Amino acid sequence: MVGSDGTALGYAVAGSGNRTAVGEEHAALAITEAVVRALDSAGVPREAPRLLAVALAGASGAGPGWLTGPLTENGVGGRVAIEADLVAGYLSGTLAEVGYAVVSGTGAIAARVRHRQIEAVADGLGWLLGDDGSGFQIGLAGVRAAAAELDGRGPATAVTAGVLAELDIPASAAAEEPDDRRRPRLLAALLQRVYAERPVTLARCARVVSEATTAGDPVARGIVEAAAAGLARTLLAVLDLEDPGPIVLGGSVLAHQPLVADALRTALPEGAELTTVPDGAVGSAVLALAHAGFPVDAERWGRIHSTLGALR
Amino acid sequence: MVGSDGTALGYAVAGSGNRTAVGEEHAALAITEAVVRALDSAGVPREAPRLLAVALAGASGAGPGWLTGPLTENGVGGRVAIEADLVAGYLSGTLAEVGYAVVSGTGAIAARVRHRQIEAVADGLGWLLGDDGSGFQIGLAGVRAAAAELDGRGPATAVTAGVLAELDIPASAAAEEPDDRRRPRLLAALLQRVYAERPVTLARCARVVSEATTAGDPVARGIVEAAAAGLARTLLAVLDLEDPGPIVLGGSVLAHQPLVADALRTALPEGAELTTVPDGAVGSAVLALAHAGFPVDAERWGRIHSTLGALR
Repeated sequence: MVGSDGTALGYAVAGSGNRTAVGEEHAALAITEAVVRALDSAGVPREAPRLLAVALAGASGAGPGWLTGPLTENGVGGRVAIEADLVAGYLSGTLAEVGYAVVSGTGAIAARVRHRQIEAVADGLGWLLGDDGSGFQIGLAGVRAAAAELDGRGPATAVTAGVLAELDIPASAAAEEPDDRRRPRLLAALLQRVYAERPVTLARCARVVSEATTAGDPVARGIVEAAAAGLARTLLAVLDLEDPGPIVLGGSVLAHQPLVADALRTALPEGAELTTVPDGAVGSAVLALAHAGFPVDAERWGRIHSTLGALR
Repeated sequence: MVGSDGTALGYAVAGSGNRTAVGEEHAALAITEAVVRALDSAGVPREAPRLLAVALAGASGAGPGWLTGPLTENGVGGRVAIEADLVAGYLSGTLAEVGYAVVSGTGAIAARVRHRQIEAVADGLGWLLGDDGSGFQIGLAGVRAAAAELDGRGPATAVTAGVLAELDIPASAAAEEPDDRRRPRLLAALLQRVYAERPVTLARCARVVSEATTAGDPVARGIVEAAAAGLARTLLAVLDLEDPGPIVLGGSVLAHQPLVADALRTALPEGAELTTVPDGAVGSAVLALAHAGFPVDAERWGRIHSTLGALR
């Protein structure tokens, strides 16, 4: 939470606020918890806020009705403004009137932003139909590469050991005999584990691929380069060469796996101005202040950044 | 059904007998229906059969107990022998003691067969973890290519119109305005349709990719060539160069989409002996006769082929 001059007073993180992923009820409770903890940590009365900017994926057209119950029950005041997480991410990286946001987390999406609105969007089509270059696609490719090695169809790769560890499959399984379908035990264990969970959970194996790339593994490098090429295609679909603008990178993959961001940089036109943001907290504050009648200039924006940084 | 000299007397097709796909109860009913209709069409009493060879995917270790109820209730006689569909497919194409089977239908798998048993197997790991070169992977790649074109991220391809038609999305949707997330309506309709069904149903779009390849579409050709390369890797994982043997190709993709089989042929060592079979019916008859004490030689095998062909 921020004061009217942009000074960050409180900061909190709670569970997933993604309605598609966890359902409306859980999302509303998680958002309420984050708001309450941020207010409490700032020592600000719960009824004090003038405006709550809630930045969400796929937010367009959604009213705030599903959120008001939990907020009211917890005594939180203030009008709720629903905004796109892409815009909040963008405004965390720049105040430019026109520019671009590329997010790769579990999913992947790119947008052209103009006057704090999404003007064009590409991908964000979900794990089956799109999300090129996302954590899910990187993790899935890593898991498939591990399966191919164990199955004798693919090259040896450092990704395999990492995937087995990430999925809690003990290496001791390798010492046992092949099972009755003549499969290596490790492959049988991987098969069982992967199909027991929701596909989207494989996104957590993206980190394994990144680490193997750092260690020089060529299979991992191929996966990372394909992901970066996919993200570049997605960005180019919304890039207006007459309005170049800054490019803000966000999401867990682009924020924490620098090799993906590096590969993306090499796939873009020379001179592209890239900034990476850890999340959309600064941009959410920008949106909240703007809605409350305190437009954010460079000075206020700098103050949000520096004071929020001290709270994290 | 066949007589002891290999003469085919009856033939019938019923619904899916895949327990994983449709459940044990439905599979047992479908198999019973096929048996009953084959016997009835031959004018053979239902209690007459000496042996029923049931060729199934992933059959290893499964007893016939789940099948005996429906068969008995329908008055069908004979001992039940469960066999692998891979072996039945193999024996539909050759009687060689050692050789290979490659199946690409909804899934994909390859096996080395020795003395009518599976000696080694590769892939068959399902739609998420493997099935390289399967109808599902080809169909999924086609649907993703269509989404990429509609999203402005991918090249124009004949696959797009085919996928929209296959998924019953009317072209008239294109004439409407973009929706509030600035997505083309056709893409929004595709998104809704794809996530409403089980992923594996996308396998039906494989045919669309094949047809576009025939028409010279380069995106489709790329998908088909990647699929064939995947199937070649799977086969090479079980191929013993000291025991080359014939290679029998089966499954809906390899049986009905000759371009995939052609691309696979070019990816294999020169001189490989390839045969394509429409299904495992001949091989099931071979297995039934062998179990009943009538070993199948080249003469009987030829008789099964010619007399079954007349019944289809």
